[in-house]
Amino acid sequence: MSELTHFNEQGRAKMVDVSGKNDTVRTARAKTAVLLNEAIYQQIKDGSNKKGDVFAVAQVAGIMAAKNTAQIIPMCHPLALSGVDIEFEWNVDEANAHYEVLLYATVKTKGPTGVEMEALTAASAAALTIYDMCKAAGKEMVIGPTMLLGKTGGKSGDYERA
Amino acid sequence: MSELTHFNEQGRAKMVDVSGKNDTVRTARAKTAVLLNEAIYQQIKDGSNKKGDVFAVAQVAGIMAAKNTAQIIPMCHPLALSGVDIEFEWNVDEANAHYEVLLYATVKTKGPTGVEMEALTAASAAALTIYDMCKAAGKEMVIGPTMLLGKTGGKSGDYERA
Amino acid sequence: MSELTHFNEQGRAKMVDVSGKNDTVRTARAKTAVLLNEAIYQQIKDGSNKKGDVFAVAQVAGIMAAKNTAQIIPMCHPLALSGVDIEFEWNVDEANAHYEVLLYATVKTKGPTGVEMEALTAASAAALTIYDMCKAAGKEMVIGPTMLLGKTGGKSGDYERA
Amino acid sequence: MSELTHFNEQGRAKMVDVSGKNDTVRTARAKTAVLLNEAIYQQIKDGSNKKGDVFAVAQVAGIMAAKNTAQIIPMCHPLALSGVDIEFEWNVDEANAHYEVLLYATVKTKGPTGVEMEALTAASAAALTIYDMCKAAGKEMVIGPTMLLGKTGGKSGDYERA
Amino acid sequence: MSELTHFNEQGRAKMVDVSGKNDTVRTARAKTAVLLNEAIYQQIKDGSNKKGDVFAVAQVAGIMAAKNTAQIIPMCHPLALSGVDIEFEWNVDEANAHYEVLLYATVKTKGPTGVEMEALTAASAAALTIYDMCKAAGKEMVIGPTMLLGKTGGKSGDYERA
Amino acid sequence: MSELTHFNEQGRAKMVDVSGKNDTVRTARAKTAVLLNEAIYQQIKDGSNKKGDVFAVAQVAGIMAAKNTAQIIPMCHPLALSGVDIEFEWNVDEANAHYEVLLYATVKTKGPTGVEMEALTAASAAALTIYDMCKAAGKEMVIGPTMLLGKTGGKSGDYERA
Repeated sequence: MSELTHFNEQGRAKMVDVSGKNDTVRTARAKTAVLLNEAIYQQIKDGSNKKGDVFAVAQVAGIMAAKNTAQIIPMCHPLALSGVDIEFEWNVDEANAHYEVLLYATVKTKGPTGVEMEALTAASAAALTIYDMCKAAGKEMVIGPTMLLGKTGGKSGDYERA
Repeated sequence: MSELTHFNEQGRAKMVDVSGKNDTVRTARAKTAVLLNEAIYQQIKDGSNKKGDVFAVAQVAGIMAAKNTAQIIPMCHPLALSGVDIEFEWNVDEANAHYEVLLYATVKTKGPTGVEMEALTAASAAALTIYDMCKAAGKEMVIGPTMLLGKTGGKSGDYERA
Repeated sequence: MSELTHFNEQGRAKMVDVSGKNDTVRTARAKTAVLLNEAIYQQIKDGSNKKGDVFAVAQVAGIMAAKNTAQIIPMCHPLALSGVDIEFEWNVDEANAHYEVLLYATVKTKGPTGVEMEALTAASAAALTIYDMCKAAGKEMVIGPTMLLGKTGGKSGDYERA
Repeated sequence: MSELTHFNEQGRAKMVDVSGKNDTVRTARAKTAVLLNEAIYQQIKDGSNKKGDVFAVAQVAGIMAAKNTAQIIPMCHPLALSGVDIEFEWNVDEANAHYEVLLYATVKTKGPTGVEMEALTAASAAALTIYDMCKAAGKEMVIGPTMLLGKTGGKSGDYERA
Repeated sequence: MSELTHFNEQGRAKMVDVSGKNDTVRTARAKTAVLLNEAIYQQIKDGSNKKGDVFAVAQVAGIMAAKNTAQIIPMCHPLALSGVDIEFEWNVDEANAHYEVLLYATVKTKGPTGVEMEALTAASAAALTIYDMCKAAGKEMVIGPTMLLGKTGGKSGDYERA
Repeated sequence: MSELTHFNEQGRAKMVDVSGKNDTVRTARAKTAVLLNEAIYQQIKDGSNKKGDVFAVAQVAGIMAAKNTAQIIPMCHPLALSGVDIEFEWNVDEANAHYEVLLYATVKTKGPTGVEMEALTAASAAALTIYDMCKAAGKEMVIGPTMLLGKTGGKSGDYERA
């Protein structure tokens, strides 16, 4: 069974040494969601049909957060990301008053460690930005579940969520 | 019904003018969770009984993220936070193999806008840090649901999640 | 004649003491422009009529840069901005093949110093973002002239560009 | 005609994937200017002959901004810059009361994308810093025109402004 | 005897609540030093007599670090600094081959907590910058002792180092 | 005798061009110390035997500062660090009332320049964090001497402090 790898001999956190790892192309894809009320659903839809586009701001927030991951997550290695993308998808069931935005973040690098944290952080920041821009119309929004959908590249091989 | 407030007359995002609001004491409290497997549960428990304390790192990550909220969330106002705290609580049902960390973030300020986003961002960053430090032992962890539990202060008054 | 105020007795730069100044509402408005070619003009217009909105990204860049001004400009005081907005306006003369975006940044604070630098920095970052997103279609774009249009509040009084 | 490359299939901004590009040495050189009045001209000249050196602060601001470009410009790739330099040149015609500082920023990297934005951002930040440090003696200063003078390296080849 | 104040009931670090404290003018003054060899001493002296001014860069580094203190020191409160200054003084005894730069950082705010950490951080960053710029001529430089010389303002009253 | 290398032909600071240097594995190790009183010594010891662990926070501060070095030290090259670790060691002589924490920071990269500044900055930030968390029990703490213990890798070869 894997041991927690982020601790030194004094039992305190360290940034793990990856200098022996090769630079390879690595990708990761994460997902989260924002559950919201009908009013917010209508406002976002109306806005993005015109120009008041909540998702456009969330998109930028997610991309910038991906680049900032090593500043937000203490033991994360700084990485020169080679690509970041975020997609939005409505999951709506009006009959049951279910209004939900699904967010997908895809991150790519050519480096010595994976970009799982970058993808998860990008998705989280984009979701938080949606919360921020819509909270005047309902603070009961719920973010999540946030999870890794998959990753490719690196010595530990590919992973796909079951 | 409230309109989305973050858009200007051109239909593009703006940082809303709060110069007319008074500086009052405001608090917010947010919650999230990390669902994880038994191996990770044991490793975190073992670590925090000694010194390899995953939660200590997550705590720092959450507090620093609270201070960085206006850099992570584009339309958030910069605020001089007066206090930030994060608590962890195990929600474990071994019979059903349910292992979950609950995270509570409490943020306080004396300023012109609320700190809901700071509390939500702190909780999210702390949860992401737990994910990062434990992912070698299981990438299937799930973060969330992330939500606002309550807020006090400000013109819109107190809010408590139903 | 005013002396340069940012130097100490050793002749080196300092951040001027403003602790004696009162917190008052202050605004500043700055302007810049991006001169570009017809192809870029058409692409931006097409994009913003749909959703590929260059200005939406520039807007976010400008607002975040306003909040980061004290990190970008060494002797600038950190300020809790109370509002930031950015507007775009086309200045086009097709007969003379003149295609230009005008950018206006308006910043507001309640604090001890003015926000001229925040407005100028926001306008500059938004213009640079337009350059970045369109440079594949023509690197000969020109940014500027960048100038302060006016300011209100503070002991030195209001200023309006002649 | 080139298409705008920064948009995904949903028509929203993304950070373009450059993982297929090779790491090569790339340089870029940008130029801007600050037009100012005679009093400021004299003060800067006097200062730099002694030690109250406005340009020394602008120099540091420009170099740090070059390193921060990926934080300021949302779709810019983070790059490990290998060198940054900034030069200042007076363009003065006293007979016509024309006082102008020309700023040249040169940036170099060994990486998968060019450094045009880093050079433009460095020049802009240095110019804004001159504005900041001299604004007490005249707010009518004008920054620009800001432009790319040339670039070398990369698949699209060298570019030199006509 | 004072208890460590930065821990919550779970025994983990928190950012202490200062919302009950009044905004008053507070100052702090810190000192550090860099011990270096004769060659570096001559080079810095030669440079600052001309324009290659190591101290000018260290000055900017110290001022920017003061503004960034809450990002560098995890439990530090963000504060809107109202003034920062740094001074340099040579302490040289050529007969005994003793070459040392003394650095003094003075920070001022009008806020709810003191600026001791800002002054200490500014001095440290300025000293590290001197080390960086001179290390090609001798890596054996020594930084310190770094200490608080005094503070004024706040409920705990003034402090002056004995 | 080495010349100061960080200056351009105008005598102003530049970030030196390292594009001709090879990416090799490089390490650096730095040391600092915090001298403190008996009360603080007891409180830190008590805390780390339980969970109120001052060193755990200092550890995170040091690691994050290592990653931020190029933002704190103006002429430092940005580097993708591959590993960072910090160790603490008590140096106590109760008979002589001497209580001192020794801090050792070790940084590793695979890149074109060394990581001396990252190691020195990490040690400094960790020491400042100890000061911050304990200052309520004694502001007379002293940080330093801060020095480079050694480095490996790079064209200039290994260095070990005599």
